Formats: sequence, structure tokens, C-alpha cells
Amino acid sequence: MRGPRETKTGMKGPRVTGSISLVGAGPGAADLLTLRALERILGADVIFYDRLIDPAVLALAGRETEMVFVGKEVGAHSWPQARINQVITAAALKGRNVVRLKSGDPSVFGRACEELEAARAAGIPVEIVPGVTAASAAAAALGRPLTERGETDHLVIATGTCRPGDAAPDWGALLRPGTTLALYMAMGKLAGIEASLIAAGLAADTVVEIVCDASTGRERQLATTLGRMRAEVAAEGLKGPAIIFIRRPKSASAALALIA
Amino acid sequence: MRGPRETKTGMKGPRVTGSISLVGAGPGAADLLTLRALERILGADVIFYDRLIDPAVLALAGRETEMVFVGKEVGAHSWPQARINQVITAAALKGRNVVRLKSGDPSVFGRACEELEAARAAGIPVEIVPGVTAASAAAAALGRPLTERGETDHLVIATGTCRPGDAAPDWGALLRPGTTLALYMAMGKLAGIEASLIAAGLAADTVVEIVCDASTGRERQLATTLGRMRAEVAAEGLKGPAIIFIRRPKSASAALALIA
Repeated sequence: MRGPRETKTGMKGPRVTGSISLVGAGPGAADLLTLRALERILGADVIFYDRLIDPAVLALAGRETEMVFVGKEVGAHSWPQARINQVITAAALKGRNVVRLKSGDPSVFGRACEELEAARAAGIPVEIVPGVTAASAAAAALGRPLTERGETDHLVIATGTCRPGDAAPDWGALLRPGTTLALYMAMGKLAGIEASLIAAGLAADTVVEIVCDASTGRERQLATTLGRMRAEVAAEGLKGPAIIFIRRPKSASAALALIA
Repeated sequence: MRGPRETKTGMKGPRVTGSISLVGAGPGAADLLTLRALERILGADVIFYDRLIDPAVLALAGRETEMVFVGKEVGAHSWPQARINQVITAAALKGRNVVRLKSGDPSVFGRACEELEAARAAGIPVEIVPGVTAASAAAAALGRPLTERGETDHLVIATGTCRPGDAAPDWGALLRPGTTLALYMAMGKLAGIEASLIAAGLAADTVVEIVCDASTGRERQLATTLGRMRAEVAAEGLKGPAIIFIRRPKSASAALALIA
């Protein structure tokens, strides 16, 4: 297996540095880790992990591995990104093999850029170990693919929550005919999403599918409509992490079939 | 682990049916399989696999497992989807545990709908085991995430090749500001993609990144521009499977930085 540790082999100099692996932990279920992710977890000296990492995944680490929680506790502030960058690079510069464990795929809304840049600036070998993103797990849970041949020719993965101060995405503009839209981090933005999609011409009875905690023992699913979404999410007490699916097929006949 | 085999436990009736698992094999490297995918492969009585499945993945199957190639040989016709549906359901109806092994994630351009429908119509327990999709592996190979906070707030995964007779996707319309566009099955459609994106206002010197055979020993990367893409792909002799990345950041300053 290739990894940042091999990169070290060719390095010369007085100081032995460790490595940083940005590892995708997958959507939740421990058996949706990749073999490579498991290998990196087992080989880690220290693991920095987020709030959304399932305890079953954390339990795979060896007893000698130091585990550091860097996520947000309920009611408390999360670690600032700059502090996370600092602690992971400091650990690697001590010669330790660092795993930065992120839910899903690190490349999808994972703040990976900042950590890659920090590692590179410090001269630390760094890699991304890709993982199964939550939309794939949510589609598997529903038993309904992300693309449906002849009806959807593209998948849009968008965030409900942007950087503070940035404008919200124009979700309605993203939902062209032929689209499956998968929204991440969107459960707190349902009013804005509904308004944007209605303004873009979607019918209030367009089907919306929501999967919370996909692949875990806490998984919950809701099939509703755009117009009833907010009330039903509130009535069911659903919260994130969740994936919200809205589809706009190419054909009118398929669009009609989606109307509940 | 949950799976279709457990679903059988509650079934009653004279005939014992098997099961069908649509299993994502990931992007290529055997260690990018999930633990669940490996468990399904090891437990399969028969595996129906495609052209793009890496030999290292196939080698994981047990000696007793029947291996059936249902993909396209170079210069020959691929199996029609209806025939694949027929053989997988027939095997399961004989009581066998069937794995239908698909590259990447079965939910992304995987023709999973047809096989799910065929299994359901035959009353066979069926599941999707999600996998790492090729765009995630290609981003990991580049060391560059699929989303970059503040610059891209959505990822569009689109196909270059639609169902015969269907109109090509309007790629230019998909590339709104704030987008990372990842094109699958697009290496044969470079002229149309270039024309669509230029017509949508992208500069000819917009950066294009291409990763062929991501995560495998055959992996190749090319960083080029929209205007030089076709000539350089031809000169390098690059072919699919590949992911083509084109980004359109939100900010003008970031857009300028992308110009080569």
C-alpha cells in the first residue's frame, strides 16, 4: 500500500518527520470503512477525530493510539480550524504518524484544503484516503441510485451551510432537468431551500427524501414533499447529519410520476 | 452486519431464494474496497463483474466462488442489460448468494436501477453496498479536494455519455460559479465538452485536470487547459476510465488564479 510513510523513505535531513493522513471514515457504519482507512487507523500514533465519527469506528484504533477529539460538543464552540491545523502539524513534526479522521469522504465539504496547505507549508508528507460519501450511503439505504439512466444525467452535491458571510447557494438554479440534488448540512436551512426551489418552478408536491444518520443504527428516513418538508421534519424531530434528496428528471412523464 | 441474507430469515414459503448484492468495488485499488464489500465478495456463491473491476479485487474472491464476466471485451459487444438482469435473478432464484460487482459506487452511473427492479420483480432480497466513487479517488490522487471552502459550494458529477438517442448534457450550464465539475465517461466527448464550456463563457485557458485509472498502478494525471485539452490528451495517449475536473470558483480572484 502506498502512503505518506513511504514518501518519507526518500527524504533526507536531520529531522525525521511523521506524516499526516486525511482519512475518510465513511458515512458511519464501521464496515463502510475502506481497507486502507482501517490500515491507517491501525498504524496511527495519534488520531484527531470529529463529532460525526461513529464510536464503532473509533473502537478500531489500537490501545496505544492517542485519541484527540477536535469537534464540536453540544453547546460548546468547535475547535477553530487554525488550531486543528496547528496540532496536527505539531504532532507530525514530532515524528508521529497522524491520522485526521473525517466523516464521509475528506474531499467533500471536509475542510481538507486548510489541513493540506498547513501540512505542505510545514514540509510534512500528507495524503488523502478517500471514503464513501454520505450521499452514496443514503442512496443505498433508500435502495434508489443517485442517477437513473435516461432520467438523471448528473448528481449535484451541494451544501446548505456556507462559510459565515457567504451568500447561500442558489439551490433552485442547481436543480435543472436531469438532476439529482443531494444536500448536505441543510437541515437548519429548510425554509430557504423550500423558497429557492419553489421560486425556481418546482411544484410544492415534488417528492423530497431525507435520510438521517445513513448506515448507522440511528438511521431514519422520511419521504415527504417540498411543501410538507418543514412540518414533517419538525413533527418527526429529525436532525442532521442528514442527506436531503430532490430530483428533477428529464422527462415530463417521469416528473409526473414523482408527484405524490 | 446487515444484508439481504438476513432479510431471508423472515421469509416463508416453499422456495428458498438467494440474494443479490449490488456491491461497489471502489475506484480500482483493492484496498479501497470497504470492509462490507469484502465480506460480500468472500460470502458470494457467484460474482458477476464488469470490465473495469481490477484483477486485484477479483483475486480476493474465494476459490469456490464462480466468477462471471458480463462486461464489454475490446472489439466485442457488451452484454445487454436485460441479459445481465436475467442471469443475476436466475442465479439468486436457485438459492445462490449473488454479488453484482460494479466499479466505484453502484449508485453513480451504475445501471443499478434496472438490476434493482429486476430483483424486486422476482421477489429476491436485494441491497446496495455503497463504494468510493471515482471522483473521490481522483481528488485524493491530485491531493486537491472536490470542494474548496469559500470558492466551491457544490460538486457536479455528470456523464459525458448518455443513453443512445438522448441529448448530451448541457455541460456549460452545469458549471455555474461555485462549482467543481467532475465528468465521468467523457474522454470520447472532448470536442463537445470544450464547445459547450467555451459557449458558456469559460476562457480557453481555464485549467482542466484529468486523472485516468485513479488509484490503480496505471494511474496517470494531466493538468492542461480547456483549449489544449484535446491535443494533449491525444499526444499523451490518455484514455478512459478517467475523471475530468473543471472548476469555476465563486470569486473573481480565485478564477484568475486558475488561469494557467
